[in-house]
Amino acid sequence: MNPVIHTILQHRSIRRFADKSLPEEHKKTLLECAIRAPTTAMGHFYSIIEIKDPKLRQQLYEVCGKQAAVRQGSFFVFAVDLHRSQQWAEHLGVDCTLEGYTALVFGTIDMTLAAQNMVLAAESLDLGTVYIGMVGHRASEVSELLGLPSDVIPVLGLVVGHPAEDPALRPRISVRFIHHVDRYGEMSPQEVDEAIDVVGNFSSGEVSANRDEEARRAWIKSLLTGKWWISGEESLRKALKSKFHWPEEAES
Amino acid sequence: MNPVIHTILQHRSIRRFADKSLPEEHKKTLLECAIRAPTTAMGHFYSIIEIKDPKLRQQLYEVCGKQAAVRQGSFFVFAVDLHRSQQWAEHLGVDCTLEGYTALVFGTIDMTLAAQNMVLAAESLDLGTVYIGMVGHRASEVSELLGLPSDVIPVLGLVVGHPAEDPALRPRISVRFIHHVDRYGEMSPQEVDEAIDVVGNFSSGEVSANRDEEARRAWIKSLLTGKWWISGEESLRKALKSKFHWPEEAES
Repeated sequence: MNPVIHTILQHRSIRRFADKSLPEEHKKTLLECAIRAPTTAMGHFYSIIEIKDPKLRQQLYEVCGKQAAVRQGSFFVFAVDLHRSQQWAEHLGVDCTLEGYTALVFGTIDMTLAAQNMVLAAESLDLGTVYIGMVGHRASEVSELLGLPSDVIPVLGLVVGHPAEDPALRPRISVRFIHHVDRYGEMSPQEVDEAIDVVGNFSSGEVSANRDEEARRAWIKSLLTGKWWISGEESLRKALKSKFHWPEEAES
Repeated sequence: MNPVIHTILQHRSIRRFADKSLPEEHKKTLLECAIRAPTTAMGHFYSIIEIKDPKLRQQLYEVCGKQAAVRQGSFFVFAVDLHRSQQWAEHLGVDCTLEGYTALVFGTIDMTLAAQNMVLAAESLDLGTVYIGMVGHRASEVSELLGLPSDVIPVLGLVVGHPAEDPALRPRISVRFIHHVDRYGEMSPQEVDEAIDVVGNFSSGEVSANRDEEARRAWIKSLLTGKWWISGEESLRKALKSKFHWPEEAES
């Protein structure tokens, strides 16, 4: 097993960090690694906003579900960025044709490729990381807090810092439920039970919480029916409606 | 520089591969690396469909812009997958609340995290990779070809194989245009020219194509105003409309 594969297979999200800032040279390396990721048609459809201001960090902590990590280590907001492309188009006197779902999807891809490069680079430097999905669930509030320009949608947060915990690996469902050959393979009811057991046994930092069947099923139900999906959708739609040029708006 | 950072900084997309299949043990490692990526709330909102059938490969090649790489090496279609979650929800007798833009964005994030793990693992094994964005621009056609179930949206292709070329690194715009601190930094007209020079000089596999200013600007114009964005948007919308449960449909 080479060091790259070792780093990938040893990934754990870290949710508690030492009160120690990231050396600037490490941060520089992480950013260089982020921007070396592939980018759709060389378009660079993303931005990374590092939040240093303690007041902004506190406000983001409050908006993003009061997760302790948001106030620890270094915090980066990854955003889908069409603002830059549109500025280039205006500069050249042309109309940008990238918009709507395509812009959202390819911007999210570009942004995520850069983020995952940063995560693996950080882990190779013995730093810890955790993604903060709540940034995407509070896209409208985060956008307002940071005063982002139109066509910049914050979708994912990332904390990087010195780990103050050493959790075990979290489980994954079997690769055979994710990997299909030529045709999509449907899961049998027994396989659904098997996957639910794995995910339902999830608990912060533990390989297994040794939950009983009822508790595992309750966890899955809360995962799939959570109200945060609904409130998150409202906030994301608001951020997109007010900021992106959507074809349906052009038509109406 | 450690081996992980070295691998990340040396990334080049490979577009020509040797006529040699991927050893099965390598493929197994790549898939294990993919599924170790972080996943939103342990939801595993993605699937990876490996295309082995030569007839399907040929059809995908034709649908996805006839890029040579699609017929070479191993080919994986990465898809946003809500089908699995909905099956779990049905199995437990609850209604899944994850839908719409949130499902699209977080599914795309989960899928891309897994894909980038696979890319870096492959590169650490001296394999080459290239993402095929055309899969997302032909989401509707690809979905039909592969007979994907509802709520599985193919968004990104990935070729992995033995490289038959050794291209130079491609340029990126300066990190200072991507990295912002606390507030989004607007680019000056001079900085826009600088970035346009970098991206506009892009040419397959070369650090610089030594294009003159007019040619560089023409390239950027074609990037930002391409008709493929429009046709891609039509296909992606069609795939989403017919497959995802969108709130606007529920309301109407």
